[in-house]
Amino acid sequence: MRSVVLLSGGLDSATCLAIAKADGTEPYALTVLYGQRHAVEIEASKKVANSLGAIEHKFVSVELSAIGGSALTADIDVPKDRDESQMTDIPVTYVPARNTVMLSLALGYAEVIGAEAIYAGVNALDYSGYPDCRPEYIAAFQAVAKLATKAGVEGKPIEIRTPLIMLTKAQIIEKGLSLGVDYGITHSCYDPVDGRACGHCDSCLIRLKAFESLGLTDPVLG
Amino acid sequence: MRSVVLLSGGLDSATCLAIAKADGTEPYALTVLYGQRHAVEIEASKKVANSLGAIEHKFVSVELSAIGGSALTADIDVPKDRDESQMTDIPVTYVPARNTVMLSLALGYAEVIGAEAIYAGVNALDYSGYPDCRPEYIAAFQAVAKLATKAGVEGKPIEIRTPLIMLTKAQIIEKGLSLGVDYGITHSCYDPVDGRACGHCDSCLIRLKAFESLGLTDPVLG
Repeated sequence: MRSVVLLSGGLDSATCLAIAKADGTEPYALTVLYGQRHAVEIEASKKVANSLGAIEHKFVSVELSAIGGSALTADIDVPKDRDESQMTDIPVTYVPARNTVMLSLALGYAEVIGAEAIYAGVNALDYSGYPDCRPEYIAAFQAVAKLATKAGVEGKPIEIRTPLIMLTKAQIIEKGLSLGVDYGITHSCYDPVDGRACGHCDSCLIRLKAFESLGLTDPVLG
Repeated sequence: MRSVVLLSGGLDSATCLAIAKADGTEPYALTVLYGQRHAVEIEASKKVANSLGAIEHKFVSVELSAIGGSALTADIDVPKDRDESQMTDIPVTYVPARNTVMLSLALGYAEVIGAEAIYAGVNALDYSGYPDCRPEYIAAFQAVAKLATKAGVEGKPIEIRTPLIMLTKAQIIEKGLSLGVDYGITHSCYDPVDGRACGHCDSCLIRLKAFESLGLTDPVLG
C-alpha cells in the first residue's frame, strides 16, 4: 500500500519516512514549501527522500507569508538561546494553521495517488506550545479526512499516522538510528545562516540536547 | 467583530461576502489561487471585494496543480453540456481536498487578524458530488478549527459559517439580490475562453438555469 509522508527535511519527518518504510508502505514524500527557508529545506528534504528511498517526491508551494503572523514566514526575529522553561508558550515561530494546511495538501496528494495513509512527524512533547501538535487535534483532522475525500465516501478513509506524537526527541532519534536514518543530512533550524543551522533557536537547542542525552553528538550541530 | 470570507469571485462567494456584511461583521476577503484560471479569478474577486466593501483583500497562491487529479488544475477536459442526471457523481472538476486547503488558509488568516468567524460559500445541494461540501464535513472542520488554533485553545474558537449550505442556487441568487450583489461582476465558469464564461460547463449551466427559474437573465451569460 502507498503512503504520503510529509517531509520537511528535519529530524522528525526523516524519522517518519523511515517508519513509513519499516511499516511496509510505499512512501511518497511531500514537501510543503511555505517559508523563506526554501533553498535549505528543498536540499535537505531531497537528500532525505533519496537516502530513505521515497518512491516519489513532490514539492508544493503555499504562500503562507501572504497571511503573515509568524517568525518563520514574516519579518519577526526567531528567539535564540532560550531555556526549556521559556519554550512553553505558543512561540512566535508558530505558523497559523500550518499543520492543517500541510495535512490538507497531504490529503489531496494521498487521494490523487490512492494512498491509504498519511505520515506526519507531529510531536506533542517537545513542542507543547503548538496547539496543532496535540493528539486531539490529529483525531479531529482524521474525522475531516474521512468526510472530505472520495476515498472516505467510498468507505476507505485515509489514515493519519503520527508515530512520533508521544515520543521525546531522544526517543525519536533512537528510533531513527535503529532504522538507519542519517541525521547528518537533516535540517531542523528555524533560522539558518548561509544554509547552516544556527545552533541557538529552539529547534537547534532541542535536538542538540537530545543527542547529548543519548551520549551522542548531533552530526549537524556537533 | 472581524470575519474572513473565502472569495473566489463566483456567485456563491459573492453572496457569502454580502451576508457576512449583513451579519454585521467586518469582512476580510481571502482569495485562494490554486488553478490555471488565475487572471480571470483575480479580476472578478477584486471587483466583488470592492463592490461589497471588504476591509482588506488577500491573495494566497497554493500550487495544487503540483498534486494534480482535477480538470481544474491538471490537463483534463472540463465536461460540457451535461444534464443534471450526469452531475451526480464526483466530477472530474473535483479538486482533491480543495475545501480543506482553503478553510485551512482561512483559519490561518483568521488567526492572524483576530477574526471570530470564517464564511465559506459551500453548497451541499447543487454540488452533491463534492464530499467536502456536506454539513457533516463542515462540522468536522469546525472541530479542527477549535483544536488547531491559539484562539481555540484560549476558549474562543473561530466559527465556520456556511450560510448557503442548504440553499438552492436560485435561493442563493434571491438572497444576494436582496443584499445588493451585482452578479454581473461575478465569475463562476470552470473553463473560460479569453476571460469569458463558456456557458457550457456544469457551473455555467447551473447558474443559467437558476436565473431562468427566477424569471431572470444571468447578467454574465444572458
